[in-house]
Amino acid sequence: MNRDRLRALLDAVRRGETDTEAALETLARLPFVDTPSARVDTHRSLRQGLPEVVFGPGKTAEQIAEIAAALRRAEQNVLVTRITPEVATEVCAKLPGCEHDPKGRLLWFGPGEVPLQGAGSIAVVSAGTADLPVAAEAAGVAHRFGNKVETLHDVGVAGLHRLLASSELLRSARVIIVVAGMEGALPSVVGGLVDKPVIAVPTSVGYGASFGGVAALLGMLTSCASNVTVVNIDNGFGAAYVATLINRL
Amino acid sequence: MNRDRLRALLDAVRRGETDTEAALETLARLPFVDTPSARVDTHRSLRQGLPEVVFGPGKTAEQIAEIAAALRRAEQNVLVTRITPEVATEVCAKLPGCEHDPKGRLLWFGPGEVPLQGAGSIAVVSAGTADLPVAAEAAGVAHRFGNKVETLHDVGVAGLHRLLASSELLRSARVIIVVAGMEGALPSVVGGLVDKPVIAVPTSVGYGASFGGVAALLGMLTSCASNVTVVNIDNGFGAAYVATLINRL
Amino acid sequence: MNRDRLRALLDAVRRGETDTEAALETLARLPFVDTPSARVDTHRSLRQGLPEVVFGPGKTAEQIAEIAAALRRAEQNVLVTRITPEVATEVCAKLPGCEHDPKGRLLWFGPGEVPLQGAGSIAVVSAGTADLPVAAEAAGVAHRFGNKVETLHDVGVAGLHRLLASSELLRSARVIIVVAGMEGALPSVVGGLVDKPVIAVPTSVGYGASFGGVAALLGMLTSCASNVTVVNIDNGFGAAYVATLINRL
Amino acid sequence: MNRDRLRALLDAVRRGETDTEAALETLARLPFVDTPSARVDTHRSLRQGLPEVVFGPGKTAEQIAEIAAALRRAEQNVLVTRITPEVATEVCAKLPGCEHDPKGRLLWFGPGEVPLQGAGSIAVVSAGTADLPVAAEAAGVAHRFGNKVETLHDVGVAGLHRLLASSELLRSARVIIVVAGMEGALPSVVGGLVDKPVIAVPTSVGYGASFGGVAALLGMLTSCASNVTVVNIDNGFGAAYVATLINRL
Amino acid sequence: MNRDRLRALLDAVRRGETDTEAALETLARLPFVDTPSARVDTHRSLRQGLPEVVFGPGKTAEQIAEIAAALRRAEQNVLVTRITPEVATEVCAKLPGCEHDPKGRLLWFGPGEVPLQGAGSIAVVSAGTADLPVAAEAAGVAHRFGNKVETLHDVGVAGLHRLLASSELLRSARVIIVVAGMEGALPSVVGGLVDKPVIAVPTSVGYGASFGGVAALLGMLTSCASNVTVVNIDNGFGAAYVATLINRL
Amino acid sequence: MNRDRLRALLDAVRRGETDTEAALETLARLPFVDTPSARVDTHRSLRQGLPEVVFGPGKTAEQIAEIAAALRRAEQNVLVTRITPEVATEVCAKLPGCEHDPKGRLLWFGPGEVPLQGAGSIAVVSAGTADLPVAAEAAGVAHRFGNKVETLHDVGVAGLHRLLASSELLRSARVIIVVAGMEGALPSVVGGLVDKPVIAVPTSVGYGASFGGVAALLGMLTSCASNVTVVNIDNGFGAAYVATLINRL
Amino acid sequence: MNRDRLRALLDAVRRGETDTEAALETLARLPFVDTPSARVDTHRSLRQGLPEVVFGPGKTAEQIAEIAAALRRAEQNVLVTRITPEVATEVCAKLPGCEHDPKGRLLWFGPGEVPLQGAGSIAVVSAGTADLPVAAEAAGVAHRFGNKVETLHDVGVAGLHRLLASSELLRSARVIIVVAGMEGALPSVVGGLVDKPVIAVPTSVGYGASFGGVAALLGMLTSCASNVTVVNIDNGFGAAYVATLINRL
Amino acid sequence: MNRDRLRALLDAVRRGETDTEAALETLARLPFVDTPSARVDTHRSLRQGLPEVVFGPGKTAEQIAEIAAALRRAEQNVLVTRITPEVATEVCAKLPGCEHDPKGRLLWFGPGEVPLQGAGSIAVVSAGTADLPVAAEAAGVAHRFGNKVETLHDVGVAGLHRLLASSELLRSARVIIVVAGMEGALPSVVGGLVDKPVIAVPTSVGYGASFGGVAALLGMLTSCASNVTVVNIDNGFGAAYVATLINRL
Repeated sequence: MNRDRLRALLDAVRRGETDTEAALETLARLPFVDTPSARVDTHRSLRQGLPEVVFGPGKTAEQIAEIAAALRRAEQNVLVTRITPEVATEVCAKLPGCEHDPKGRLLWFGPGEVPLQGAGSIAVVSAGTADLPVAAEAAGVAHRFGNKVETLHDVGVAGLHRLLASSELLRSARVIIVVAGMEGALPSVVGGLVDKPVIAVPTSVGYGASFGGVAALLGMLTSCASNVTVVNIDNGFGAAYVATLINRL
Repeated sequence: MNRDRLRALLDAVRRGETDTEAALETLARLPFVDTPSARVDTHRSLRQGLPEVVFGPGKTAEQIAEIAAALRRAEQNVLVTRITPEVATEVCAKLPGCEHDPKGRLLWFGPGEVPLQGAGSIAVVSAGTADLPVAAEAAGVAHRFGNKVETLHDVGVAGLHRLLASSELLRSARVIIVVAGMEGALPSVVGGLVDKPVIAVPTSVGYGASFGGVAALLGMLTSCASNVTVVNIDNGFGAAYVATLINRL
Repeated sequence: MNRDRLRALLDAVRRGETDTEAALETLARLPFVDTPSARVDTHRSLRQGLPEVVFGPGKTAEQIAEIAAALRRAEQNVLVTRITPEVATEVCAKLPGCEHDPKGRLLWFGPGEVPLQGAGSIAVVSAGTADLPVAAEAAGVAHRFGNKVETLHDVGVAGLHRLLASSELLRSARVIIVVAGMEGALPSVVGGLVDKPVIAVPTSVGYGASFGGVAALLGMLTSCASNVTVVNIDNGFGAAYVATLINRL
Repeated sequence: MNRDRLRALLDAVRRGETDTEAALETLARLPFVDTPSARVDTHRSLRQGLPEVVFGPGKTAEQIAEIAAALRRAEQNVLVTRITPEVATEVCAKLPGCEHDPKGRLLWFGPGEVPLQGAGSIAVVSAGTADLPVAAEAAGVAHRFGNKVETLHDVGVAGLHRLLASSELLRSARVIIVVAGMEGALPSVVGGLVDKPVIAVPTSVGYGASFGGVAALLGMLTSCASNVTVVNIDNGFGAAYVATLINRL
Repeated sequence: MNRDRLRALLDAVRRGETDTEAALETLARLPFVDTPSARVDTHRSLRQGLPEVVFGPGKTAEQIAEIAAALRRAEQNVLVTRITPEVATEVCAKLPGCEHDPKGRLLWFGPGEVPLQGAGSIAVVSAGTADLPVAAEAAGVAHRFGNKVETLHDVGVAGLHRLLASSELLRSARVIIVVAGMEGALPSVVGGLVDKPVIAVPTSVGYGASFGGVAALLGMLTSCASNVTVVNIDNGFGAAYVATLINRL
Repeated sequence: MNRDRLRALLDAVRRGETDTEAALETLARLPFVDTPSARVDTHRSLRQGLPEVVFGPGKTAEQIAEIAAALRRAEQNVLVTRITPEVATEVCAKLPGCEHDPKGRLLWFGPGEVPLQGAGSIAVVSAGTADLPVAAEAAGVAHRFGNKVETLHDVGVAGLHRLLASSELLRSARVIIVVAGMEGALPSVVGGLVDKPVIAVPTSVGYGASFGGVAALLGMLTSCASNVTVVNIDNGFGAAYVATLINRL
Repeated sequence: MNRDRLRALLDAVRRGETDTEAALETLARLPFVDTPSARVDTHRSLRQGLPEVVFGPGKTAEQIAEIAAALRRAEQNVLVTRITPEVATEVCAKLPGCEHDPKGRLLWFGPGEVPLQGAGSIAVVSAGTADLPVAAEAAGVAHRFGNKVETLHDVGVAGLHRLLASSELLRSARVIIVVAGMEGALPSVVGGLVDKPVIAVPTSVGYGASFGGVAALLGMLTSCASNVTVVNIDNGFGAAYVATLINRL
Repeated sequence: MNRDRLRALLDAVRRGETDTEAALETLARLPFVDTPSARVDTHRSLRQGLPEVVFGPGKTAEQIAEIAAALRRAEQNVLVTRITPEVATEVCAKLPGCEHDPKGRLLWFGPGEVPLQGAGSIAVVSAGTADLPVAAEAAGVAHRFGNKVETLHDVGVAGLHRLLASSELLRSARVIIVVAGMEGALPSVVGGLVDKPVIAVPTSVGYGASFGGVAALLGMLTSCASNVTVVNIDNGFGAAYVATLINRL
């Protein structure tokens, strides 16, 4: 249920077309959509106009299709994250109207073009080739959340000339997501080039002393640039979520 | 040197009142203020209209006074962080026009009233009594950076009624800083109550398995609320810095 | 051998129907049931009237069936934990009278209805969908141990309205098991709502900085609620065991 | 404000002796006692009949005396934990009626004899001489919370004869607190001897690989005895709190 | 080449039957046996009269057979550790005279009965069923190194009666190997019962906070029994090696 | 009470000179010596003929003097470990007959010359100057426990010529204690030179990535020499204790 | 594009044979070679005369072949690291002129004989058999980078005689790469024998307390030899890269 | 004893002016200088022509003066590291000819001007003001070891313009030492700008998630620049030592 339908219901109550008890019943069930495998809370979506998000790992294609179908019936757009190609293929076979973004490991049920809503653009910057899946997740989510998105890849700090050549792109963004594994130094460098909030996403890319993203995480938390905040390792979705909230301010 | 003085210089060049070489010399030295103990980069301040910030620990009262005096001569406002009462007293004795905020461990050289600049207010929320110094740092910095600041203290998650009673304050803020030690659960709960960016500050408060703030830090990084980003342990300053950037969007 | 059989033996000795030597022999072998793969100590079961518990991982279907058969011959109820569907199917094929709880990963040999013994009920509360297997283990074990069990799922702290709507269920329980992964904040919130012992079970659910349950574990150990104690990561069984002991006081 | 005063207020409302507005005002301020340094939540105490507890570290003698005085005025008993001898002496000089337990690092404002309330006794068992302060905190808190307390010290697992000689004391308790540093093995051994809940308290006692209590903490979390739950390192207070709740069931 | 052959060579030199150059050549190649995959140092075996030991993991059946064959040609006994059943079967098919101990994951090329050499016996004690593979490695290695070995299994510290019932076996041993996972408390308890050196072997048995043997390792390193030393996690071989050296003193 | 006095008591019982009840009373109190601050277990000393050992840290000079005096009255020799010069001076002023070893941080109450009991000598080898206090503790304890002790200092692995020049000393010892901080490589090198048990003692010497002895501890646990076992960081006492047990075999 | 082609272009500009715009276009695209899967920066190769290096893991045979082909077209030599035998076979089938070094897990596209460029030789020394793959990577990379390479294997510190027998080889090298897992002591010992820079490579070889190379890493960082620097765990490539730079000085 | 004196001795032997026995005696004692507190190995100095280095921490002024005096008598130059101003003042009072560098915490006994020996210069680059002591140690040591040293301070990665403005200085150096705390990103950026070996020194500067230098250490070990090797946290001395060896190649 989205805001428009809610408004219609309340208007009907006001005009006496719907009696209080019936409206109450509808409203009481409103924030939850029950599916065989989960009770989905649609409260936030209601308030935000954001699509519902389903975290893919640990769910079968059947469960995902069920949840998505229930949400579609409730007129919600649905975004599935961290989906494997195999599961995506199965889900799309079960539920029509799906769009698969294999680079971002995303599945989308909703309009092909999401209307832009934020005041500016979100830049998604990544350090190395291996950071691309997380960057693609962040970019894909930001795009489906209605943001204008700019991307900049392969601009690791050991090759500054590539990054500096794109500093205009960075400066024109309203908020910047920086994705980096290994030593995670890129957010500090980007943070020093711009005066906008930088959301740093450490990735689990690397081996040995990268300890599955810990080196990058610690590096970002101790960044010498003051405009950097950090999300969990590989959490491209979370970065895009917060960037969207900021972009809508 | 602030924006106004810079504009005047450029106008003088345009009008031919200042020749290119002299202006070049001025501009070349512009981003740095040299003091006996440090070369202070005033570039960012220039771009942002923010005061210069001096990190207090490891500096003597003499060094702090020197740096602040040099910056004052360059017509910059100055904010010193993490200052002890003893050092603060010494610095204020050496350099007039200082204002000391002992709770936030801040020293301020600038106008008593900083004009408000952001579009809304920043809420600073903290969990326990022991988290107050970090919350006060965040609030004090946000205040000196020209934000409207609302504070809410002692609203730990084991006593939800206090927090819920203030949910209006939370909802009316444009960005929320949440300061918590021990298990660091408050950002998740606050994040679930609002649709604004939440900046979580873990504190080193606690003992045993809190490991100097690590428990709170990990809890915040793995928050089940999607609108939470995290800064370093005890980094109230950094949270206020980013919140300011967001509030000015 | 259970308490009733033991009492019968002792009565027989008292009445002179069994001579001392024969009884001694029986009693000497009493606490152990030897199976080809293990010597099972039935001492505790004797004292407690609890079923024997077999930890499934690392044991083949054959070994589990053997142990369970030996215990069944000794008139013990048997509960197997952490069993996979494949092994469960094999064991049930070998040994009749088995009941399989796939959600809780439990196998049960005993009466369909275990008589209730504790003075009140045990509530099992969990935060997210991914915490369900551990919650189901805790609930299933508590049920087979003769407790009345109430469950409450998907009440993560970022959606407080769900949890608060069920606070009556929480308050009516005699002891509460709270299962949560990621930041593990739920026990603190539940602990603040009730005046009963809360047993917190961190789960290995999460990624990145959750470090396989460490974030949740540390969060629970440093809980700001004083009525929380903690068991090992994913240890739903242990939580149910202690809750049973408390419920029987 | 305690339950008796609350009941009197409600009776007055019922009898019409106090009008609704005045009662509302009183009740609205009820759960909080404001002091110059903190807002103390007396809600829990109201529900439980437990004294208010003030965590000593980080508070000056002046602040503690202020808080305690405010609570005393609200007719609450007060227990201060982790107090140093110096601060205790100062507080007692400022506020009469104080009782100091230096071994348990506790300060008590309340009746000399707290009436017993639980159904049985709490045993406090500790491993080595260096664990005594934490054990004394647990025992002292349990005592002031109205429990019968039995103590057993210096029964480390490398000298089993001492522990086994006291197994009767262990078996007769309703709940057992076990305090141990270094390898933290005592809870496992005690847990194997009794069929009651065991609350394990790791201590920061030890050096080198004890890592400030981490070795003991991990040992207790991975205990092979199923009746063991764990609290934070050195948290004698928390163990006594939960034991009290269990003993009152 | 063993001591007897070496003595014969030197005697031949002394008697003039072998000229210096030829003997030199023989001796120079003596401590190494070259195989296609490795250069095996037989120096230690020469000094100790111990069989050569080949660490199995990471080697193919072909490589192991090659190395063992080369050593057999050099008249050395050979013990292969950590061998899987599949590789063992393959090696035995390639090289006759092999004896496979699947519980201890050992392969043996040498006499069926190794003559006893130490002054007393080595006891191998283990805590739980899951510790058996490591205990069997320790016992099997000690046996092949010529020691009398006594074993005692399933004597975890939560069931002291089993351990105490076997204290005579413990006291009669010259050196004791104690194998335990989870909290690793058994060495402390055994160490308190005997006055002999105890070699503790932590195992990677357990889950959650056992961290792959770290909990047991830390517990053993911080043991309150003074007669305990520790080897690496799962290192049953190392424990047996040192126990052999002690038993031969 | 030592073995001789115990034998006399038992003889008196046998001869009827002491009645059973009186002897029972004496024997029941026998393993404990009660002092105002601690109950000392003299059981082990009785069995071993070793002096009682008091761990100094956390005890006042008064407490140490009290315990030592009580033990002296019970005719025990006493060794105090980890004592500071200040406390040592105080204790010696209170209780005559004390001998202070400041390098080993030991205090000794007993005969100047302890009769040698082991079959051979114990070598104590240390890597750097900063490891000397732990080495001196090990050597001092071994000496007071009646062992012949050889010491070899400053033989770090980066200067092999010093170590190799003393290999005869190493080979002639019956058991070798190796004390090293930083990378803790010395036990591996020594272990490769001898065929005797090597007890490795990591020290907390070092900075940065030595993490208070963790680097050395891990290095010793993963030693490529099979004859190495490990004790806790800085535990010179424990190494000497086990070495004594081995030397007495 | 290599230096020679660049010089030709610039000469053509100077002679007026290529106009500025065309040259500008060529130069602007110069440092990057775009392939379907990655933008490869050839800047460094240009400056250094080193081959391009492609990190194999996470790339399909198709991607690797694509990148290599594009670089070959740009007249670069190409070295692929960490390649599995399966992927290597596929790549070689797609792109002719490939040379596969399975021990070093390297693939080479370039001249069979790379001309020597450094002033001396690089010694690659390794401790155990399991360290060989990393050592072979280091040696193979150093060889393809145009260095004279000497190797020395199986010289672990527990068997010093093998290492000392080769000290001449060590002393004659200009820079030494030392590869070791487990306790990682070999760099300290080698560092003590030579006066040249030693680059230490910890390997993930080992089990238990080796923690995937952490023990070796910490040991190398805290080495008591001052001439040791360290690279990441298993980073044979990085060691060879730095050694090459040093050898070319 | 330095090379010149050694050569003279050997010449005297050759000419028969010194008999073999006397020379042998001299040579045998040659690599060690015995002082009351330590045996100093002068072997390396002999080979390298480097001054002797004394690690200051843990040594009294008296001990340092003793050692330095002994070395001075043996005609060695002496460099003391990590010396506090208090100890430095005391040592200089006891032993004339001392030079104190308080920024680098160094004490020097030797010629005011050390002749330059390396082929080029060593650049010492540091990120923040707080990294200066470690950078000064590295620069001071490199200077006393006979290198030309260039320094560049306050060039943290969040302010790239300062660093880029000095890229010429970086490119002209033969080897570069980069000192950085917090996220430790500077070596990656510098490594990308130059084609020379970069030695990274993490510092313990920072708070919270910098964990005493661990964040910087991990960042440097996982650097995306291939020309970076790492030394221990705060080990400015070690970096200068290796840089000297490289500069002398």
